[in-house]
Amino acid sequence: MTSDAPTDLETAHLLADTARTVILPYFRNPGLEADNKLQTGFDPVTIADREAETAMRTVLQRLRPDDAIWGEEFGQQPGTSGRTWVLDPIDGTRGFISGTPTWGVLIALSDVDGPFLGIIDQPYTGERFTGAPGVAEMTGPQGTTPLATKQTRTLDQAILFTTFPEVGTPQERAGFDAVSARAKLTRFGMDCYAYALLAAGQIDLVIEAGLNAYDIQAPIAVVQAAGGHVTDWQGNPAHQGGRVLAAANPTLHAAALEILRTF
Amino acid sequence: MTSDAPTDLETAHLLADTARTVILPYFRNPGLEADNKLQTGFDPVTIADREAETAMRTVLQRLRPDDAIWGEEFGQQPGTSGRTWVLDPIDGTRGFISGTPTWGVLIALSDVDGPFLGIIDQPYTGERFTGAPGVAEMTGPQGTTPLATKQTRTLDQAILFTTFPEVGTPQERAGFDAVSARAKLTRFGMDCYAYALLAAGQIDLVIEAGLNAYDIQAPIAVVQAAGGHVTDWQGNPAHQGGRVLAAANPTLHAAALEILRTF
Repeated sequence: MTSDAPTDLETAHLLADTARTVILPYFRNPGLEADNKLQTGFDPVTIADREAETAMRTVLQRLRPDDAIWGEEFGQQPGTSGRTWVLDPIDGTRGFISGTPTWGVLIALSDVDGPFLGIIDQPYTGERFTGAPGVAEMTGPQGTTPLATKQTRTLDQAILFTTFPEVGTPQERAGFDAVSARAKLTRFGMDCYAYALLAAGQIDLVIEAGLNAYDIQAPIAVVQAAGGHVTDWQGNPAHQGGRVLAAANPTLHAAALEILRTF
Repeated sequence: MTSDAPTDLETAHLLADTARTVILPYFRNPGLEADNKLQTGFDPVTIADREAETAMRTVLQRLRPDDAIWGEEFGQQPGTSGRTWVLDPIDGTRGFISGTPTWGVLIALSDVDGPFLGIIDQPYTGERFTGAPGVAEMTGPQGTTPLATKQTRTLDQAILFTTFPEVGTPQERAGFDAVSARAKLTRFGMDCYAYALLAAGQIDLVIEAGLNAYDIQAPIAVVQAAGGHVTDWQGNPAHQGGRVLAAANPTLHAAALEILRTF
């Protein structure tokens, strides 16, 4: 790369900008849905997903031809650098089709140790949550502010989020419910936006199950850059997906892990 | 009133503008919380609630001295006009303290027949959903667009929202679950924002219980102006609160009501 080539962080922002431009026209667009009411026909979410991932892959092809790509829509493309861009063009498609402003574009850059750079972008609100080496910040309608997780130490003071009450299997639901019973407040329905709120110091815990790698790699990078701690329910790395425990700090993480370990 | 006095709709917008200005500095403000960690001390939600309602009451005292006021924080103030401004400065305080952008300022104007003008305002996203005689529109980051509910006819095509899985009493939860079992998709966690999504043609049903009058009067006015239908679970007016069924259209309303009536 020449000295004026974009950095990894600049590349990630360019990917997020690209996805925003592609996806926003599909969001809350009643005309698109009205064009085709066939069950088997037009699906604006799928189209937005695919077009956004294609556009991001085109950017990477140009700027990072040696890196691998792993995207939700088009799978894995090998690279030679040992680094992988992990992309979920629309995380929270159920929220997207319901018009909620809490889905997100997820972009991560990982190596053999897991993700070290991540962006959670909400195109409609114009909010972008970024975590990278030495960087933890959000930009939004009120400008740019640093991301820093909360110092909540005990479960009885914690605000806990997950996306839907079933969580996963019955056993996984039981694990979640066991933590929820100890928490100050439990809320539902936010998809990846819950991790953004955790990184922004608004909530304390996110517990989910049944995740894919591309659902969680960007959240891991953002939450950890902001001071949080993310593992699976056994305390091991979570970047391959599955059961995830994301906490505002190691102390609170340990308190929740002690419960989840037994499920 | 003189001819240049503000209309009811202009007054409602002024109230919403006023509440926005007061509340936004409290939203996601970690400095405020950090100033006082005492359990019994500083509560930014309560302060924002009270200051916003006080500011709105001051506006009404000046512009509508003959109208009654019913606000969540300071109760009922009688009037002489037969009209009542119904105010909830922050609907969705649990969402507010969690940093989600889905709480709202609720403003309604009602007479003996119920609310005929309503605003659901989301200060952080800058979205405002307005329903009044001859008016059904939203303003937001993408400009001003008309509000119109969906034409979904059957429960199996419907997207259903409520705020939390318990809904209300065990019987009320059972009623909700019976409709949910027939719906295409059920989502949680949006508070008053779910009614805004219903009016905006994004979702099809909102079912809740245990509401107060000030939780539901503005949503009723907005949803009905957009073409929706709102009653209690027996098909009677819902503007006194309690159990609420809000549907995108009368056909879908009837399908859900047939189930809820039996609970």
